Amino acid sequence: MSHNSFGHLFRVTTWGESHGPAIGCVVDGTPPRLPLTEADIQTWLDRRKPGQSRFTTQRREPDTVRILSGTLEGLTTGTPIALAIDNVDQRSKDYGDIKETYRPGHADYTYDTKYGIRDYRGGGRSSARETAMRVAAGAIARKILGDGIQIRGALVQVGSQAVNRDNWDWDEIHNNPFWCPDAHAAADWEKTLDDVRKSGSSLGAVIQVIASGVPAGWGAPVYGKLDADLAAAMMSINAVKGVEIGAGFEAASFTGEQNADEMSAGNDGVRFSSNHAGGILGGISSGQDIVVRFAVKPTSSILTPRKTVKKDGRDTEIVTKGRHDPCVGIRAVPVGEAMMACVLADHMLRHRAQCG
Amino acid sequence: MSHNSFGHLFRVTTWGESHGPAIGCVVDGTPPRLPLTEADIQTWLDRRKPGQSRFTTQRREPDTVRILSGTLEGLTTGTPIALAIDNVDQRSKDYGDIKETYRPGHADYTYDTKYGIRDYRGGGRSSARETAMRVAAGAIARKILGDGIQIRGALVQVGSQAVNRDNWDWDEIHNNPFWCPDAHAAADWEKTLDDVRKSGSSLGAVIQVIASGVPAGWGAPVYGKLDADLAAAMMSINAVKGVEIGAGFEAASFTGEQNADEMSAGNDGVRFSSNHAGGILGGISSGQDIVVRFAVKPTSSILTPRKTVKKDGRDTEIVTKGRHDPCVGIRAVPVGEAMMACVLADHMLRHRAQCG
Amino acid sequence: MSHNSFGHLFRVTTWGESHGPAIGCVVDGTPPRLPLTEADIQTWLDRRKPGQSRFTTQRREPDTVRILSGTLEGLTTGTPIALAIDNVDQRSKDYGDIKETYRPGHADYTYDTKYGIRDYRGGGRSSARETAMRVAAGAIARKILGDGIQIRGALVQVGSQAVNRDNWDWDEIHNNPFWCPDAHAAADWEKTLDDVRKSGSSLGAVIQVIASGVPAGWGAPVYGKLDADLAAAMMSINAVKGVEIGAGFEAASFTGEQNADEMSAGNDGVRFSSNHAGGILGGISSGQDIVVRFAVKPTSSILTPRKTVKKDGRDTEIVTKGRHDPCVGIRAVPVGEAMMACVLADHMLRHRAQCG
Amino acid sequence: MSHNSFGHLFRVTTWGESHGPAIGCVVDGTPPRLPLTEADIQTWLDRRKPGQSRFTTQRREPDTVRILSGTLEGLTTGTPIALAIDNVDQRSKDYGDIKETYRPGHADYTYDTKYGIRDYRGGGRSSARETAMRVAAGAIARKILGDGIQIRGALVQVGSQAVNRDNWDWDEIHNNPFWCPDAHAAADWEKTLDDVRKSGSSLGAVIQVIASGVPAGWGAPVYGKLDADLAAAMMSINAVKGVEIGAGFEAASFTGEQNADEMSAGNDGVRFSSNHAGGILGGISSGQDIVVRFAVKPTSSILTPRKTVKKDGRDTEIVTKGRHDPCVGIRAVPVGEAMMACVLADHMLRHRAQCG
Repeated sequence: MSHNSFGHLFRVTTWGESHGPAIGCVVDGTPPRLPLTEADIQTWLDRRKPGQSRFTTQRREPDTVRILSGTLEGLTTGTPIALAIDNVDQRSKDYGDIKETYRPGHADYTYDTKYGIRDYRGGGRSSARETAMRVAAGAIARKILGDGIQIRGALVQVGSQAVNRDNWDWDEIHNNPFWCPDAHAAADWEKTLDDVRKSGSSLGAVIQVIASGVPAGWGAPVYGKLDADLAAAMMSINAVKGVEIGAGFEAASFTGEQNADEMSAGNDGVRFSSNHAGGILGGISSGQDIVVRFAVKPTSSILTPRKTVKKDGRDTEIVTKGRHDPCVGIRAVPVGEAMMACVLADHMLRHRAQCG
Repeated sequence: MSHNSFGHLFRVTTWGESHGPAIGCVVDGTPPRLPLTEADIQTWLDRRKPGQSRFTTQRREPDTVRILSGTLEGLTTGTPIALAIDNVDQRSKDYGDIKETYRPGHADYTYDTKYGIRDYRGGGRSSARETAMRVAAGAIARKILGDGIQIRGALVQVGSQAVNRDNWDWDEIHNNPFWCPDAHAAADWEKTLDDVRKSGSSLGAVIQVIASGVPAGWGAPVYGKLDADLAAAMMSINAVKGVEIGAGFEAASFTGEQNADEMSAGNDGVRFSSNHAGGILGGISSGQDIVVRFAVKPTSSILTPRKTVKKDGRDTEIVTKGRHDPCVGIRAVPVGEAMMACVLADHMLRHRAQCG
Repeated sequence: MSHNSFGHLFRVTTWGESHGPAIGCVVDGTPPRLPLTEADIQTWLDRRKPGQSRFTTQRREPDTVRILSGTLEGLTTGTPIALAIDNVDQRSKDYGDIKETYRPGHADYTYDTKYGIRDYRGGGRSSARETAMRVAAGAIARKILGDGIQIRGALVQVGSQAVNRDNWDWDEIHNNPFWCPDAHAAADWEKTLDDVRKSGSSLGAVIQVIASGVPAGWGAPVYGKLDADLAAAMMSINAVKGVEIGAGFEAASFTGEQNADEMSAGNDGVRFSSNHAGGILGGISSGQDIVVRFAVKPTSSILTPRKTVKKDGRDTEIVTKGRHDPCVGIRAVPVGEAMMACVLADHMLRHRAQCG
Repeated sequence: MSHNSFGHLFRVTTWGESHGPAIGCVVDGTPPRLPLTEADIQTWLDRRKPGQSRFTTQRREPDTVRILSGTLEGLTTGTPIALAIDNVDQRSKDYGDIKETYRPGHADYTYDTKYGIRDYRGGGRSSARETAMRVAAGAIARKILGDGIQIRGALVQVGSQAVNRDNWDWDEIHNNPFWCPDAHAAADWEKTLDDVRKSGSSLGAVIQVIASGVPAGWGAPVYGKLDADLAAAMMSINAVKGVEIGAGFEAASFTGEQNADEMSAGNDGVRFSSNHAGGILGGISSGQDIVVRFAVKPTSSILTPRKTVKKDGRDTEIVTKGRHDPCVGIRAVPVGEAMMACVLADHMLRHRAQCG
């Protein structure tokens, strides 16, 4: 058991604080002889990197990853792969004022209560900076999964503004700074988030991640269910408050007739009339697209003063200056994709172990 | 790693199929010298037991639990506690017709694809019968947590009919067969579910589980987050398609100002102005109520014919007769409570291990 | 983590006390569609069963195993296999006198100190009765390994009397009640152990277990080494005080020249001039026989009075009557074989997961 | 599950190859607010460092450790502690000639067979260089255990020359380069090892590690036994072929009367007349010294030509030049101490979790 590891056969352990010398991870269980270079990982990290538009934190981190072990001449060796990213643009002074004060909605209070000590610099371990290592591990997971499996994420809601699914165009996600598949929604969000940004406020969001090409049979009853692992993986991302698979909460309103994804014989296997199940039945993949959505709350680091308490128990107010994301949901898209990749890689190996 | 275990220090391993001789579990890690008798467990099992109203399956199982190890003279000894329940009311003939046919929305197809073999009798391992052992384990978890922590579940939505939270009355949940805290909603549901039942259809539902009295400090960054473990626990329950904590998906629509639970000095510690966080910040409990909701899809066992395929790949139609729940969400309430208890007991021990 | 489980992908959890209603285990991770009946397991249990000669405990336990889950029509289904054996010949009165007194060399004192409670009836959880479930699990492990891998154990030393390895004859182990491969040694032991038995004393022993046919490549650096897992597996057997692989402690006296198992090209792969490594290099199997030995201390249940203390701290003497083994090493032979089988089955699956 | 992690609540994951840019580890589960600086760790690393006498490898590694996360202002924060040591004195050319040839007694052949790829530079992952991180982790474990628990190791046998236990003097281990507690034996070993070194040969050894001050009650039945975990920990050290607890293999020759450690009432708890059990009964500590011994084979890197095969299967001979230890057992002493510390720290937390 490790509080800072996830996965079983594809197992990732992350370490590091927002303002320490570096962050990193150890990825164990990778099959041998997979091509893997730092560039293969960097390409995914660059998508999550802060400071790429005015809608994400202005912290400037090159996030340059180094492979410290586990490869030889561009191939994985089957031994643990250690990755590290140096922290470059730390400005600890920005955070000095919150050393003694708990930001509402942040982990400040709970860390102090649990441990009796807290690395207050930039949120320490609770910083979303940790998610860079998830993206790095996800890059390795994608190598394991191979080209036959495609994992794509999109932002589908910002505040109360959802995309129109009739407008969905995967190509569109590269045309706006939001990973938005709906050009109209993207235009609306731009206005909305400019207002939010200028007022020093923030907004929540919903992310959808889809994995295509996953064969039927991955996942395992009863506590190794693919959807249970996906739920934990997504919920472990900073600020996530909800996770759903397929029809999700909407399924509560369905009748059995509406919900059943009918099956028929197709040319290359079973066909389904719909995908309310989100590609998972009884915790095992059905061969359909795996569909996961998760909700991200608005960041609590805002310019409007909020009531709170100090470490010594006295009442006070706080304004969090720092450099923050008006909508942390944006950068959560590549993180969600990475967690999907890691869970699938783990279950691919688990399935191979038991079923050959 | 075990696909059929959950928890780390309070660790539960379940076994058994719907129509095998028995189902059971092994609970490891229980502290010694806790009072524990079969009656302590039976009382919770009786709440989940089938056949208690016309709104749940008419299968008649006494679900009498036996303690096979781990106690001496009414006290736990610290060694593994084995529990078993004999299966009594199996009618395998009911299920003979689905031996060769995959029920849409069921795990039939995915089990067969994964394992190349499937216990078709009553769903085998994928049957909700397995959840009886969760409830049994939850009874032990409650003993560990002690009387200071209260865990209560309620059904808050059936189909598209949600409770009115202004009417919430915990006492009410014992006055109707739905664990419904709103008397008006309960009356509506009775009508709705009678219609559903008579027409051989089914409906989804949403369950809310609240734990009060949990001290601040349980849970752990980053992959041992309390909410990540709760998400996995709830998502692992049969038919669950979504999990949310506190404000959940609604938090996506919030601004940072709306979402922040402001803090102030109270008489016995910190007070919060609201609980959008659902009692968890940074994966660690804050001392507020832990609030979890999960969505259950309608059962796929319905009387309306649905298109599907046979094991040999040919198209067919299926009507699932058997004895089923018109709304499986009802019996999911005690199961959700049990999973909350198990996750909390595990984290209580995990916190004690690291932080003393 | 579970204190009562071992293995990772082939994972066994045992439960039960010497004088409770039953003992049992849950075996998770077994590949599907393996032929498995109760008879397949019973045949191995019968080899370990008490009361088969005058040299083992006279407790009469039929040790009849029941499969409670995880198979269908004689094939494994891939879901957890639960096994149970009812305890039949409990005579709790035999042990009443040790309820308040700690037997030297037994776990009585440490259990009481750890847990503040102890099932004193027949040793409770610390009884060697638990090893029956290891043998049962080992029978399933052998099915996974298949016929190409042969696992055989022998008693190679009783007290200070070792076998003469020049006399080694595997067929001989079925001709005496000791699993002794040397007919001369067996004759000597018979005399020795009759004396020991009559005087109410006991003797230690050394067991050797050999696995043939294991392919090169199983095991994993650095903490998943095959020999590290074997060491833990054997040391976890009751009364074991030492484990060695290949040349073992004798290797300390070797020079590098003596120790090196030289290699040469053979018809079907590499040949080794010797097997001091015991078939494991760098924690990974080399294709040679896997050779493990372990030492078992003499049972502490003897008729000679020994000084000890009572639960209340006062000095006393104790004579342990009950029904005990003059040499517990004898019945440890099938247990050692079973642990070898379980470790190998686990590593077979682990290797397949990572390396395909 | 991770092949490169050990421990459960005090959990260490190591990474790195002999000739990669660095080696490191992540230590998770450390309690918060323990004083910890790099100097606290360095002091133990310096004891294991190569090149300290003519009897160990002449590779010159300063082995300077850096703490990359998990501490703040000299105190642990409860989050994962990442440690790294840069590899400085790599001479890859030394090893070029073994790229295509398997050294007998080394892991070369098994790694290649398992993974189909091998980092041949200095043994890659199979190098004893990995043990530096065990020593580093052990330094943290000692902090958890506190000053009340003393862990000391000694070399007790080199080749066939054992210490005389009547001469045992703990102070003596600092007066010779062997950690030898017997001045006479140390003088003999000096002569022996000079001969071995000059002839380019090597010798095996036996190490003993003793932990004093461990309270009764740590460890857990049945597969979480303290001795089982110690056996795995020691056997996972490079070149170890045998592990024993207390009387170890000698216990096989004992009668029950000889073996029993009799108990009597002492001033501050139970007293034992002897310690054949090595401080562990039923897998749980008894309050006596924990006594472990392990045997290390001679290194296979010797100057005498040995027969072997090349990667392409052809016969050849090999002489391993490089820079090697004539007796790797010497540097195994601090490694054995570290493993003892890690296992005890883990079990301290495990005991606290379950028993408070």
